[in-house]
Amino acid sequence: MQFEAVTAQLSVRPADIGAGHVNNARVLEFLEYARWVWFRRHGLAYTDGPILPLVTRAEVDYRKEIFMGDIRIETRLAENGTHRILFEQSMYAHPDGLKPLVTAKVHSAFVGVGDRRFRTFDEFLAENGRPAL
Amino acid sequence: MQFEAVTAQLSVRPADIGAGHVNNARVLEFLEYARWVWFRRHGLAYTDGPILPLVTRAEVDYRKEIFMGDIRIETRLAENGTHRILFEQSMYAHPDGLKPLVTAKVHSAFVGVGDRRFRTFDEFLAENGRPAL
Amino acid sequence: MQFEAVTAQLSVRPADIGAGHVNNARVLEFLEYARWVWFRRHGLAYTDGPILPLVTRAEVDYRKEIFMGDIRIETRLAENGTHRILFEQSMYAHPDGLKPLVTAKVHSAFVGVGDRRFRTFDEFLAENGRPAL
Amino acid sequence: MQFEAVTAQLSVRPADIGAGHVNNARVLEFLEYARWVWFRRHGLAYTDGPILPLVTRAEVDYRKEIFMGDIRIETRLAENGTHRILFEQSMYAHPDGLKPLVTAKVHSAFVGVGDRRFRTFDEFLAENGRPAL
Repeated sequence: MQFEAVTAQLSVRPADIGAGHVNNARVLEFLEYARWVWFRRHGLAYTDGPILPLVTRAEVDYRKEIFMGDIRIETRLAENGTHRILFEQSMYAHPDGLKPLVTAKVHSAFVGVGDRRFRTFDEFLAENGRPAL
Repeated sequence: MQFEAVTAQLSVRPADIGAGHVNNARVLEFLEYARWVWFRRHGLAYTDGPILPLVTRAEVDYRKEIFMGDIRIETRLAENGTHRILFEQSMYAHPDGLKPLVTAKVHSAFVGVGDRRFRTFDEFLAENGRPAL
Repeated sequence: MQFEAVTAQLSVRPADIGAGHVNNARVLEFLEYARWVWFRRHGLAYTDGPILPLVTRAEVDYRKEIFMGDIRIETRLAENGTHRILFEQSMYAHPDGLKPLVTAKVHSAFVGVGDRRFRTFDEFLAENGRPAL
Repeated sequence: MQFEAVTAQLSVRPADIGAGHVNNARVLEFLEYARWVWFRRHGLAYTDGPILPLVTRAEVDYRKEIFMGDIRIETRLAENGTHRILFEQSMYAHPDGLKPLVTAKVHSAFVGVGDRRFRTFDEFLAENGRPAL
């Protein structure tokens, strides 16, 4: 696998907080931000382009409550199939956190923006000027 | 199990949309709204009270892209242990949708608002004036 | 003015709540949803199409705290200039609320999706098959 | 006025984007984050404590579309009355942006968390161990 793991940093916003801690849905926004950093680091489009990634399945373990402050997220491409790829992500209190606040497995596929039909990972890479795997 | 399944209805907001469809994190807000309807239907506190539910694990399958419009969500208590309960939720295009857009398993626990320590499901029920299971 | 006022209904979601009431930013999502209903009622595109509306200025008066429950929003086109239009919006506790929770003036312009350049209101109407004003 | 202006930095998240640019409601989340930084810098509570600030009126001018990337926000206390204070905020493309993307005036009051009744700014300051103005 030629894609190295990528670390992203993020600040919790007051609007992320409800019932005293970060809302469970907002955690997925944090994870998505970290994947965006991963795609950008590898020169791959995330929010614009003719083929874009989309999440097909997410498994998220909320291990500790998250409060206001900075967090960091490690994102790693764990598997890549023809149509689907799998990210493993871990979220920590920044900068020293050792025990993860959240761990997640996020399965993604690729869709053509115009026709909303699935594409292969290799087609996505080719569209971004990268060689097939 | 004495808790019947509950149906909730919801409108997609433009702010839920990104990259042409409902954002994957926003889907968890929809699911949470439907669980709030479930708790309220059964006379149980969700956003205020001395003991509140919190999500410990979510498994979400995004089966179809979701666009502007109304949706409905079926929420069912599938398992209840001493400290953890499990919801199964299915989201459909409202009102006629038969094939789910999203299916999810959401594991929840209960936490004391003051001390942030876990409570049992029975303690949560008792706090809400309901008999233990 | 041939555009009548439009009423929208909306449910507050738990994720909208922070610090005990609906977050101030989330109120703008509610107002945007109501404008989307207004555009749709009048056969006008809001989230897709070659020319889309965008907010250039918002003045929002938060008159009462908003809690979980249903709300309704009245949206009225108050002024229409060549490039800018002005909406007046009032939000109420649904269905009986008489005193507004929020009142807002929202100024909007129109932008071409491809070139991000401003268009006139008449160009937007023509694009949607409506006669110029 | 003994409260100096405060600069905050923030990353746009993919979930903030809709219709090709940052959603207008999300801009208020950014502004709120910057006020939270302002309150914290001055040793004042924002998300917990017996008295909390709440927004009573916001006037927001959206001057340019905002895209993915880092932004910075300057927050300044412009006026302080007995019950209300006024923030002036300017948002820039980080780190070099000179022309503001957004400017805003945000009026805030103070509410007791228990009884939801208004408090004076001096009561809020006293609660946070600060001398009255």
